[in-house]
Amino acid sequence: MRIYDIILKKRNGLENTRSEIEELVMGYVKGAVPDYQMTAWLMAVYFNHLSPGERSYLTHIMLNSGERIDLSSIEGIKVDKHSTGGVGDKVTLVVGPVVASCGLVFAKLSGRGLGHTGGTIDKLESIPGFTTSLDADRFKRQASRIGIAIAGQTAEVAPADKKIYALRDVTATVEEISLIASSIMSKKLAIDSDGILLDVKTGRGAFMKNFEDARELALAMIDIGERGGKKVGAVISDMDQPLGRMVGNSLEVIEAIETLKGNGPADFELLCQVISERMLIIGGRADEQSAPGIVKDAIDSGKALAKFDGFVAAQGGPTDFSTNYRKYLSPAGIIEEVKAECDGFVSGIDAEGVGLVCMRLGAGRKTKEDVIDPVVGVELVKKIGDRVARGETLAIIHGNSRELVELEKKALTETFSFSSGEVVPPPTVHEVL
Amino acid sequence: MRIYDIILKKRNGLENTRSEIEELVMGYVKGAVPDYQMTAWLMAVYFNHLSPGERSYLTHIMLNSGERIDLSSIEGIKVDKHSTGGVGDKVTLVVGPVVASCGLVFAKLSGRGLGHTGGTIDKLESIPGFTTSLDADRFKRQASRIGIAIAGQTAEVAPADKKIYALRDVTATVEEISLIASSIMSKKLAIDSDGILLDVKTGRGAFMKNFEDARELALAMIDIGERGGKKVGAVISDMDQPLGRMVGNSLEVIEAIETLKGNGPADFELLCQVISERMLIIGGRADEQSAPGIVKDAIDSGKALAKFDGFVAAQGGPTDFSTNYRKYLSPAGIIEEVKAECDGFVSGIDAEGVGLVCMRLGAGRKTKEDVIDPVVGVELVKKIGDRVARGETLAIIHGNSRELVELEKKALTETFSFSSGEVVPPPTVHEVL
Repeated sequence: MRIYDIILKKRNGLENTRSEIEELVMGYVKGAVPDYQMTAWLMAVYFNHLSPGERSYLTHIMLNSGERIDLSSIEGIKVDKHSTGGVGDKVTLVVGPVVASCGLVFAKLSGRGLGHTGGTIDKLESIPGFTTSLDADRFKRQASRIGIAIAGQTAEVAPADKKIYALRDVTATVEEISLIASSIMSKKLAIDSDGILLDVKTGRGAFMKNFEDARELALAMIDIGERGGKKVGAVISDMDQPLGRMVGNSLEVIEAIETLKGNGPADFELLCQVISERMLIIGGRADEQSAPGIVKDAIDSGKALAKFDGFVAAQGGPTDFSTNYRKYLSPAGIIEEVKAECDGFVSGIDAEGVGLVCMRLGAGRKTKEDVIDPVVGVELVKKIGDRVARGETLAIIHGNSRELVELEKKALTETFSFSSGEVVPPPTVHEVL
Repeated sequence: MRIYDIILKKRNGLENTRSEIEELVMGYVKGAVPDYQMTAWLMAVYFNHLSPGERSYLTHIMLNSGERIDLSSIEGIKVDKHSTGGVGDKVTLVVGPVVASCGLVFAKLSGRGLGHTGGTIDKLESIPGFTTSLDADRFKRQASRIGIAIAGQTAEVAPADKKIYALRDVTATVEEISLIASSIMSKKLAIDSDGILLDVKTGRGAFMKNFEDARELALAMIDIGERGGKKVGAVISDMDQPLGRMVGNSLEVIEAIETLKGNGPADFELLCQVISERMLIIGGRADEQSAPGIVKDAIDSGKALAKFDGFVAAQGGPTDFSTNYRKYLSPAGIIEEVKAECDGFVSGIDAEGVGLVCMRLGAGRKTKEDVIDPVVGVELVKKIGDRVARGETLAIIHGNSRELVELEKKALTETFSFSSGEVVPPPTVHEVL
């Protein structure tokens, strides 16, 4: 079929066949289909959407355009986890050790942060000596031996998605749920785990601002995954305010360790608990009844923390890191408190705003070339629902430049909003699918 | 504003400002805006449409991207005419002389045919000696002297439209009424006539297949023209079957001459009458009451035919052409009748099909490089509503290749459909706006 007619069908609200989508996408990857025809199709998809069949075809065509990561030589049940990205999201650092300590294999390839959201790889690299550059052999051996390995993505997974995403980014065709779902799943399905737990964030700091969109995205990804023969579950979690209290690379590692010790902030602890439970259920290590107790025990017994220690040591970090992290992580040069200017209740903390403050302080990247400062970031002393009195500390900035800290104090204050009446904090977990 | 945000506004159903559209369109013409971003905007327009203000801005921005044709040195009231294109549409050859003979100035730049529709320039060039390559000076002098001149378009009118149209053509973004209206009017408004009569075709052989779309297009073009300070009128005319009986270049010239002599087919005569009336009313040479009589008199008195003769002679054709055209136009080498294979009533003649038969016989161009055979074409003996008996002649093919004629006889027969019951022919004029 002519590319023109493939576009026309989608524009007219008809379904494209698998071979039509393949002709379009692979033609585009090879340079035979020009940018403008791909754009025409993408904008038509923006308005007319993709059917469940179409988005599954698109996912697999993009997936097949690149390398697949074969984990079959690792024994055990491998359950992957994916978050759609948020501020203060250090869930992987906790649930990885938890589920590995409960007998699952957590062999994860992670990305770096860009913009207002951080990346697991950047967080881990704030640990002295820790390496995320594992070759395939070392990665698999470690996962087999201790049940957990986290490395940076090096394989060329789904290059078609990469090329199409770059085009969507400049043509206002990013925000379409079937395209988002296909893009995420084309990368997740390239890793042959047995199951996947999707953590779909919703709220002001998330890609999906409202719950209904987040739910639709989660359902679309579950459908794609299940059509691909995987066990898939999803949690829709809150990102109206940052997750936990710490935002910034080494700050988040510390918060993850404290959570593994049972001292984490309530919202973060709850989300880690729920995600761990779902992963154990997907992986067949627990059922609805037993999962909560198994996860709690992993923390309370210290099994999960011990797994974390083993993991850090295996990837080159200190063997006593969780005990003596203060020895290894030097604090930021400037630590400044941001105070409340009035009495009331915290009614909102703009997660994206906090993420951007941290990025500008050096915790994140504006562009791919930026270098990360591992120790800078923000500590939220108050969260939504907390009562504050004028002069009380709202948050603490950790920075390494006096000028930047002064600038960002104001921006950080502005991420807080207040109410004179009591405020009910948002639920941490909106729905489990 | 960033081009991305201009696209986003349109995608989100908001209105673009004049300066946003200018930034986009002129950026595209200059090569600063890439094809894919222009495509994204066009497909968003396909779904969200343009407001009356936006389509007027777009028209004038495209118009201002090119040359304007200044007719101010020609005295008198200049009324232009535009047809959206059809099969057997030789209206210009009749109404030009009629309105010129009634005191208007008909100074028209015309195009060549492409695909299944013919072009006025090709038709006129079937007259021996006739030239349509008039330089600006000669064109204006002739229009001033005899009130009528028709030349091929040479000025670079609305290059932005040309570039955008080429992109629409390969991205399935042609069929959007505000884009079609802006494209047509950007070219028509480049010629500074006092008024324009738009002949918007509707039916199977027309670009606008259904009446409601044709009406919407007509109203959009009237609105754009009036916002541009012009008097604009529109006629919505039928193109479910070809107009008149003749399709092909010299065949259509002959039918036009016979119509100027009062011997034209009823549908074609009626449309020429109505269009001439509207042009005289737009040009202030008649009112609703007087217009029909003035036009009738122009034909009956021979004034219009004399004007045609003067026009042909002025542009290099024979001085006795309308009287002795048989002397000048050699018939086609092969003339074959197509017969009815059953009794009944003609219920349809697929105008596009007839146009394609003629194109393949050599009367039109598949591509811009094709050379026209002026004498080939089709003569429709029967039209919709006519009773036919088995063996009666339906149509006559005029060709110059035995092989092509045999091939096209079958295709021509298939353009006819029949009914056993009586059929009411479609109205020639659906609405006058």
